[in-house]
Amino acid sequence: MRKILIQLDTDAQPSVFDRVVAVDAGVDELFSYGNVAAETVEPLVHGAMFTRGGEGLKNTAVFIGGSVVADGEALLEKVNRTFFGPVRVSVMMDSNGSNTTAAAAVTLAARHLKLSGTEALIFGGTGPVGQRAAQMLAAQGARVRIGSRSLERARQTCESIASSDDDAQLAPFETSTQAGLSAAGEGVSLLIAAGAAGVEFLSQQQRNTISTLKVAIDLNAVPPAGLGGTYVTDKAVNRDGVICYGAIGVGGTKMKVHKAAIKALFEANDRLLDTDAIYQIAERIASSS
Amino acid sequence: MRKILIQLDTDAQPSVFDRVVAVDAGVDELFSYGNVAAETVEPLVHGAMFTRGGEGLKNTAVFIGGSVVADGEALLEKVNRTFFGPVRVSVMMDSNGSNTTAAAAVTLAARHLKLSGTEALIFGGTGPVGQRAAQMLAAQGARVRIGSRSLERARQTCESIASSDDDAQLAPFETSTQAGLSAAGEGVSLLIAAGAAGVEFLSQQQRNTISTLKVAIDLNAVPPAGLGGTYVTDKAVNRDGVICYGAIGVGGTKMKVHKAAIKALFEANDRLLDTDAIYQIAERIASSS
Amino acid sequence: MRKILIQLDTDAQPSVFDRVVAVDAGVDELFSYGNVAAETVEPLVHGAMFTRGGEGLKNTAVFIGGSVVADGEALLEKVNRTFFGPVRVSVMMDSNGSNTTAAAAVTLAARHLKLSGTEALIFGGTGPVGQRAAQMLAAQGARVRIGSRSLERARQTCESIASSDDDAQLAPFETSTQAGLSAAGEGVSLLIAAGAAGVEFLSQQQRNTISTLKVAIDLNAVPPAGLGGTYVTDKAVNRDGVICYGAIGVGGTKMKVHKAAIKALFEANDRLLDTDAIYQIAERIASSS
Repeated sequence: MRKILIQLDTDAQPSVFDRVVAVDAGVDELFSYGNVAAETVEPLVHGAMFTRGGEGLKNTAVFIGGSVVADGEALLEKVNRTFFGPVRVSVMMDSNGSNTTAAAAVTLAARHLKLSGTEALIFGGTGPVGQRAAQMLAAQGARVRIGSRSLERARQTCESIASSDDDAQLAPFETSTQAGLSAAGEGVSLLIAAGAAGVEFLSQQQRNTISTLKVAIDLNAVPPAGLGGTYVTDKAVNRDGVICYGAIGVGGTKMKVHKAAIKALFEANDRLLDTDAIYQIAERIASSS
Repeated sequence: MRKILIQLDTDAQPSVFDRVVAVDAGVDELFSYGNVAAETVEPLVHGAMFTRGGEGLKNTAVFIGGSVVADGEALLEKVNRTFFGPVRVSVMMDSNGSNTTAAAAVTLAARHLKLSGTEALIFGGTGPVGQRAAQMLAAQGARVRIGSRSLERARQTCESIASSDDDAQLAPFETSTQAGLSAAGEGVSLLIAAGAAGVEFLSQQQRNTISTLKVAIDLNAVPPAGLGGTYVTDKAVNRDGVICYGAIGVGGTKMKVHKAAIKALFEANDRLLDTDAIYQIAERIASSS
Repeated sequence: MRKILIQLDTDAQPSVFDRVVAVDAGVDELFSYGNVAAETVEPLVHGAMFTRGGEGLKNTAVFIGGSVVADGEALLEKVNRTFFGPVRVSVMMDSNGSNTTAAAAVTLAARHLKLSGTEALIFGGTGPVGQRAAQMLAAQGARVRIGSRSLERARQTCESIASSDDDAQLAPFETSTQAGLSAAGEGVSLLIAAGAAGVEFLSQQQRNTISTLKVAIDLNAVPPAGLGGTYVTDKAVNRDGVICYGAIGVGGTKMKVHKAAIKALFEANDRLLDTDAIYQIAERIASSS
């Protein structure tokens, strides 16, 4: 029975990126849909549920993508509600590459740091990638500072993560003023920049004042760099004693995680590959390489 | 030469159900189109006609689907008019599963009844599935009662079927009043419920008053049952002396018919798989199993 | 690594014709997009660029099609601007079959005429196919007359072709009056009709007055013929001493050129298959057959 992946994309045109990765991950047939919304997805999910029974169900799976992560989250919620009992197929959610990118960044940090107890600051921590990286770091026992221009939004993100993880150690920080930035950076050993393109969160000079810093990961692919003094192709490059990664340096790991997650969808008919599960896949890859 | 199926769907998103079945029926390449209308289909059909000549034409075929059967019928009519002479490809029409569902129901009835001479009542007989089941039953020599809330619509359906089958034995019945229901049910040995979801055509108690009844087939998948006292998973279950089938019980046979029809498309370049041809395929499957 | 062709079509429904040809040319995976515009194509191109690195890039390619050639040209221009440095994939542009049709017509003419020095008149010479045929003929050293209802538009087309080919020998002609037609046809040995359907550019009687005529190619598939006295299935048919080709007679060669061009896309990651490159492919096919 051929492996069918149903790509549900919330953008008008289903992502070429996600399609190429699906093909390279060994999917046999790719059904690609654009403009998919929670309101209209039900018959598409029914088509996955009611065609291949029993053991056959694991050969059909759903991938949720698109550039707007909130839309993907709403779609995931609706897809899960459409299933009932054992009549379901596996689902992966990776809108805008949010889960695979965050998982790649955090597992790369773990190559150089023991995450448990690490003080980490995430710039753009309220955005989709930042929030997911925070959730993954917190689950590994790191003490996570959510940085944002808005202290209020940072606080909301902390609460949102804590609501599903009692043990998470989280603190909100305002990082757009010099004072806020100094406080947020004090004593951290890990920096991740996960904000919108075009924003420099801190300059190289400011970065150099954080004497405890060990690892800096900048997920911004478009100049200027989100972290001054890191470069887009950096891949574990030691710069003034700090291990640096840029977006392209993280990209290879992200791609491996993405492909492994697609493959994992077809191991059973009930996989739900969202933030936690995708981090576990990334960890498994890291430990076997 | 690879087998290409061109799925022309009148809905915005081409049916996942039909796509999975096409893949499982052995189609090599599936070209799926949504929002297809009679007005815009011509260039798509030309692309099927003018690419692979002669013997090669049989490796391309067209499937017409979508949730609105009348739209599919209009599309079929236009596709057929676009062909000329031997420059054509095979076409299957199964909007909303109407032909394959009706064919499955009627061939299952034929396991238990000699259709020729059988008195049959079809609830929802003016709808797309009901009308097709009536046409198939009449072609096998059954005496078919078309049940509807509107006697006038039932009459029109009878005339429509009779216009292409001189020998059809058909009678219209109004079935939404107690009196109409009693008259319609009197002396029937086969009941098929093919109406809209959410309508109970007759209660179990009413059903029990039809002493001649032998087979009851309820094609409604969503509660309440269209025929009181039948269950969605029933598959030749004897209940108080009546052989019962529910929608899921019919589903396995429907799927076999659907796949066999897709395969048959590629046997030649001039197959037209609409109601009659799909019934013949269903009959062939029934007699060989 | 599977060969992926990304079909970017400017029409609402991506062309079935182009899809079938891609499959028959050996493409493994076809990603088909409709309603593609220069304004929205960037993320699709990025998906081709940023998934398969280095050597792998040559296994992804882009095909630009659709019925409006000017839209395809704008799309091609944007796709090329989106690439940077070696991070690119091969691209073929063949909106409305314009390049492959023109290349087929010109290489067929070359079977019967030494193109260099040939006097050629192209009816509909300002349209997409006509302009491309003119460009190809001029590049081979033919003296090309661009025929049009509007002398001004013919002049613009001459200038446009000359702007990228200093050596092109081109002259504009108005061909909708009897006087214009007589002047345009005087002394030509090759006629190509590449105009809109439904226009007879000259009658058989008028054609017979051109005593120097050797080859007449009519690319119009729909009656009436663009060139009186040629027939749609003509394939090197000698009629009154003139070798005649009709649209279907040219079609087989066009199909070979189209398939060969698709195959050529995957030889490297930097092929740009527009007018000149597609003519070279057609010439290679002609010389090897």
